[in-house]
Amino acid sequence: MDLQQLLGIELPIIQAPMAGVQDSALAIAVSDAGGLGSLPCAMLTPQALRAELTKIRAQTQRPYNVNFFCHRAPEPDATREAMWRQSLAHYYREFDVDPAAIPDGSGRRPFDVEAAELLTEFQPPVVSFHFGLPDEALLARVRGWGAKVISSATTVEEARWLEARGVDVIIAQGLEAGGHRGLFLSEDLSTQMGTFALLPQIVRAVRVPVVAAGGIADAAGVRAALALGAAGAQVGTAYLLCPEATTSALHRAALQSEAARHTALTNLYTGRPARGILTRLMREQGPLSHLAPAFPLATAAIAPLRAKAEAAGRGDFSPLWAGQNTSGCRAVPAAQLTRTLAGL
Amino acid sequence: MDLQQLLGIELPIIQAPMAGVQDSALAIAVSDAGGLGSLPCAMLTPQALRAELTKIRAQTQRPYNVNFFCHRAPEPDATREAMWRQSLAHYYREFDVDPAAIPDGSGRRPFDVEAAELLTEFQPPVVSFHFGLPDEALLARVRGWGAKVISSATTVEEARWLEARGVDVIIAQGLEAGGHRGLFLSEDLSTQMGTFALLPQIVRAVRVPVVAAGGIADAAGVRAALALGAAGAQVGTAYLLCPEATTSALHRAALQSEAARHTALTNLYTGRPARGILTRLMREQGPLSHLAPAFPLATAAIAPLRAKAEAAGRGDFSPLWAGQNTSGCRAVPAAQLTRTLAGL
Repeated sequence: MDLQQLLGIELPIIQAPMAGVQDSALAIAVSDAGGLGSLPCAMLTPQALRAELTKIRAQTQRPYNVNFFCHRAPEPDATREAMWRQSLAHYYREFDVDPAAIPDGSGRRPFDVEAAELLTEFQPPVVSFHFGLPDEALLARVRGWGAKVISSATTVEEARWLEARGVDVIIAQGLEAGGHRGLFLSEDLSTQMGTFALLPQIVRAVRVPVVAAGGIADAAGVRAALALGAAGAQVGTAYLLCPEATTSALHRAALQSEAARHTALTNLYTGRPARGILTRLMREQGPLSHLAPAFPLATAAIAPLRAKAEAAGRGDFSPLWAGQNTSGCRAVPAAQLTRTLAGL
Repeated sequence: MDLQQLLGIELPIIQAPMAGVQDSALAIAVSDAGGLGSLPCAMLTPQALRAELTKIRAQTQRPYNVNFFCHRAPEPDATREAMWRQSLAHYYREFDVDPAAIPDGSGRRPFDVEAAELLTEFQPPVVSFHFGLPDEALLARVRGWGAKVISSATTVEEARWLEARGVDVIIAQGLEAGGHRGLFLSEDLSTQMGTFALLPQIVRAVRVPVVAAGGIADAAGVRAALALGAAGAQVGTAYLLCPEATTSALHRAALQSEAARHTALTNLYTGRPARGILTRLMREQGPLSHLAPAFPLATAAIAPLRAKAEAAGRGDFSPLWAGQNTSGCRAVPAAQLTRTLAGL
């Protein structure tokens, strides 16, 4: 069975879920165009998730995907947090931020019972996970309404792990991809491969359909991925300029500038490595810091700096997530982009 | 004009020059099969270079490529060398090596007047460079006998730089590639992109033919590269098991083991980042060390450890160069592999 039959879609294109830069509008547009639209849920409150799912159900009859992170929520570590904030002290002075007044906490929750119960009402046809899979009981709930399950692999080992747990589709996430690396069996970034190397090796290692992600920006990229054995392509960065995305003006400008040529993996914004355009924060601190608190706790200390800089029109402290290939970014409706990616 | 017309070859396949694991035999086999065979010259004495060129001229009528490094030879730094050797002291004790008896120096010379004069006698039809280009006077000599000039770009900026200096073909070296990264305008490894992202961006940025390198292991990989706009593919790793390669038994065994799944960029063996299979040295020291002397001086201090370990049948201190996709490695004649890569 091919990817389209399996997921009930027309085109072998999955719009990558991108928390912070899109909501249901992008997902609806892509699904209506025949691709698989995705709703990123990691940063949504239960109320917001309900509202978004209600919109999707009202506005499209086509299959769609809801995406969750399934990290284990970390124990806060006061010593590490203090060291982290100390390393940022000169920024707090520069931006007149009172470090004592910065709230703890983070907007990113792992998939949990509450989310699963809410989903049960809506029965989304596809559920995708990042950072592995939730525990068996939670996964059984998702399977209970017949949802197809997708997760990302960044190594052959992770792909085999996911297949052994019965996922229906595996995303082979190449190193070129924007946003959070999905790695979950190792924290060693030297295990991470480019799409050209990762994709065919995963295709050879598993029997389920493999969808390529990372560096795919246009129809030629989709054709190349299919030539390497992919059943389809997951594309994120190219959608960031679509009117249906909520990408900030700062982020849109950066994507269209020379700055977009230089991305890096950074853990400064969340605690986990994610690819984004190099910013002042990343340049000055080094994009990867051993001081950054565990995911997602690193976010809190940067948030007030981001807010002040953005208010001044600067993205110096903003996570400007992007993959290594922004050449496909177009300010065109997502439906048009989806069909173009599929070669139509 | 396409790549084959430009270089006078039949198939759009360049065998990547791989110093230390091949000599003229591999180059001759690939050229005779219709691809472009390459002779890596960086580690050859003038006498050896003459002998190899004599063999090539005697054994094939087809075009071939000679490859040189064009780094600037560094000034030895006694303090850094001492710190480097200090960090290796426990290995010297373990292997009963007298650190005071380790010779300085290295087998890798940059392209120079002597090499250019020797080449003038043989007039090789294609000359490729790694780490940019030699100075104008040297390059003019190469052009003097009508050689086509190739060099590698690891960023769009490097591709533009090479095109502005008149190279005939640009290799887009994706991060998946084995051996030395060709980067030369920056030392920042975060600038390095996967083939899926790098290739189409370079194709768009320059007018000369672009050859894809990095992660290409089979005919499907070549087709994918062509779909992304490449004029051809440069393949290295897949040739390492060919009988014409001089790859050591240790290296061949590692390539066929699970160990080959995990490569990393390391500067421990030469001073410049190069991709190879993770070894004990890389695991224990971390693959990238700020202590490693400048290229190619780092080689000397590791050499006696490599020799002792290899004598004991272990590759723990050997540079086991390999790309991120070893799935195309086959112990078949290079001519057969070349035709297979081209889809014949």
